[in-house]
Amino acid sequence: MPIIAIVGAGFGGLRAARALSHAPARVILIDRNNYHLFQPLLYQVATAGLSPDEIAHPVRAILRNQHNLEFRLAEVTRVDLAARQLTLSTGSLDYDYLILAVGGATNYFGLDSVSKTALALKDVDDAVAIRNHLLRMFELAAQEPDPDTRRALLTFVVVGGGPTGVESAGAISELIRLVLTKDYRSLNFKEARVILLEATDKLLAAYPEPLREAAAETLWSKKIEVRFMAAVTDFDGSRVALKGGEVIPSRTLIWAAGIKAAPLVDTLGVKQARLGRVIVSPSLQLPDHPEAFVIGDAAYLESGGQPLPLVAPVAIQQAETAAENIKRLIVGQPLIEFVYKDPGSLATIGRNAAVAQFGKLQFHGFIAWVMWLAVHIYQIIGFRNRLVVLINWAWDYLFYDRAVRLISSE
Amino acid sequence: MPIIAIVGAGFGGLRAARALSHAPARVILIDRNNYHLFQPLLYQVATAGLSPDEIAHPVRAILRNQHNLEFRLAEVTRVDLAARQLTLSTGSLDYDYLILAVGGATNYFGLDSVSKTALALKDVDDAVAIRNHLLRMFELAAQEPDPDTRRALLTFVVVGGGPTGVESAGAISELIRLVLTKDYRSLNFKEARVILLEATDKLLAAYPEPLREAAAETLWSKKIEVRFMAAVTDFDGSRVALKGGEVIPSRTLIWAAGIKAAPLVDTLGVKQARLGRVIVSPSLQLPDHPEAFVIGDAAYLESGGQPLPLVAPVAIQQAETAAENIKRLIVGQPLIEFVYKDPGSLATIGRNAAVAQFGKLQFHGFIAWVMWLAVHIYQIIGFRNRLVVLINWAWDYLFYDRAVRLISSE
Repeated sequence: MPIIAIVGAGFGGLRAARALSHAPARVILIDRNNYHLFQPLLYQVATAGLSPDEIAHPVRAILRNQHNLEFRLAEVTRVDLAARQLTLSTGSLDYDYLILAVGGATNYFGLDSVSKTALALKDVDDAVAIRNHLLRMFELAAQEPDPDTRRALLTFVVVGGGPTGVESAGAISELIRLVLTKDYRSLNFKEARVILLEATDKLLAAYPEPLREAAAETLWSKKIEVRFMAAVTDFDGSRVALKGGEVIPSRTLIWAAGIKAAPLVDTLGVKQARLGRVIVSPSLQLPDHPEAFVIGDAAYLESGGQPLPLVAPVAIQQAETAAENIKRLIVGQPLIEFVYKDPGSLATIGRNAAVAQFGKLQFHGFIAWVMWLAVHIYQIIGFRNRLVVLINWAWDYLFYDRAVRLISSE
Repeated sequence: MPIIAIVGAGFGGLRAARALSHAPARVILIDRNNYHLFQPLLYQVATAGLSPDEIAHPVRAILRNQHNLEFRLAEVTRVDLAARQLTLSTGSLDYDYLILAVGGATNYFGLDSVSKTALALKDVDDAVAIRNHLLRMFELAAQEPDPDTRRALLTFVVVGGGPTGVESAGAISELIRLVLTKDYRSLNFKEARVILLEATDKLLAAYPEPLREAAAETLWSKKIEVRFMAAVTDFDGSRVALKGGEVIPSRTLIWAAGIKAAPLVDTLGVKQARLGRVIVSPSLQLPDHPEAFVIGDAAYLESGGQPLPLVAPVAIQQAETAAENIKRLIVGQPLIEFVYKDPGSLATIGRNAAVAQFGKLQFHGFIAWVMWLAVHIYQIIGFRNRLVVLINWAWDYLFYDRAVRLISSE
């Protein structure tokens, strides 16, 4: 039986594995983590609302009943397209077909100092590090006599006006103003600032104008300083420098300003487009290696003259197409081309506020927030996770609380 | 107003802080973590049944309504009894009264190699490290062609026949035989072993003979090899050496063989008894420093000719006495002496099995297990934690599952 190797157990890799459940092949899924991460809620781990196990689910548990599947916990260090072989941290693996679903990595746009000192938000470790950092700033501020140092400890800068930046800034502001005010009675919360920096003049650029305006309004109403045309040039751990000379004293810089294709694809020796994404054919194959497919954030394909966005629905739909095409290759049928169906977008800005777009329908405020809740509860993998997340959200909503205010060791 | 410093937010320190809520004093509670840990369930974090936030609760949230209390997140590095001053990692603190509730630390009895390579089970980081390690052994075994190496990967040695060792061994065996068998279909679970090593001829030495026998029977029925008179002399990460020359190839040694007083008390320059515990007067004071109290695992006091055990009820009851005596010192009243009231003991050995002793009453099996559940659900701090723990336990019981099977980075 042919071996189909799938690299990455994110939204794309997992869906591809499932779509191949009845394929006449050995499907081998490889990931460096033993869990699938529900990334859209990562910022809630970073802001103490959820614990990591509520948004991460063991891959083996998800795919337990799929009998043609093997899981390998390993890092893929090299792809030899010519020899059809993967080098893993635990050995090597020969494949007949390959699906690279390796996702994205944080893009610092060449800012070395920022890449070393800023906090990213891409995996569970990042999120836990942000949670620890935020809470530690408050503990230090509570013991800090110098007012300038204290203000720098209580200034939280988020960079990037995309969904991750907007959602993170909203959640941090609510963590501070609804929860931590009750924990730190000795602090003067007038000293606390949350600043969202966006290098262009648009928040949530993928959304239509009215929703973008509504999002900015909501952020302001939550006392978040929204700064447009503000590009970060340097961060040394205590001062954020902006283009134009402005300096913001702050101990915290959360970098949500961009992603790029995961670095593994840089080693393939194939043609890459913007953000390092690998150029694939409409059937999602590498031009010179028809047995190798790339999907999701790491793949570059245009739709209607625009590059496909780096979002989960693209990865999931491409997984279906790649799996279908491998099944067709096995039996010698002609391949299909990928067509993206935009399911709409949702972003939340905290309690009672979100923006949503489905085709020509637009929503914002409470109604969009309820949609956001419903969609996300539904999508979280595993019935127990859903139940526990629901309890946590209901509790937080009713009691203005966050459960997971633990500073763990790193 | 006088300053009362309490070092440690464990069972003793937390209770002392609460008991001083109406004292005419500034109460300053110091801990190196920002949470109180419900240690009796730590082994369930180590075996993927609970997540850390379910047994850890932020100190500030617990004591939010106590207006004479301040919390400081800091490590206490030095106690100057003569100057009545604490050196903290964040500065210094002068006190008028002191309660040292610093608890215990893992005791390796001078076995250097073991202290470097074994897994301890004393705090949240330890528990998460054990969880990661156990799951990683299975992932490595699933990819390991050599049968000898594979068997060593699947051999789990727990050292110590006290409650922690017995509960851990039981939980590991159930994790393997009820849950992981479903996740790793390619493994032959006949190769997996759980071994409990006890240096004396008794498990659960504090319990009466019939319960000790019942506990050993139950462990055997759960396919745990219980070895008496087995003293570990060395562990290099792949081989456990026993006194007498026996060698067990194993990658895992969980050390639950003993505790001692936390190392901070070694720096006090006062008289210490066995396990480094500080000798206190019947009113729990240091003989030459009547303003300084030591309680819990770090204090040495006899009751009925026997040293008091290193258990939570002693720490909690001593906290009440120490708090009362400080209030009496402030107003110049005569002090009271500590009298221990044994509330009984409970230890669980997994699904449907536990041993319990309350005075002359003894229970084992299902009835003791139900008592254990009720007592522990009741004791967990915070209504939400109780609810989530209850859901997790019910789910695990009904579906033979463990929720938190995540391998996180360390």
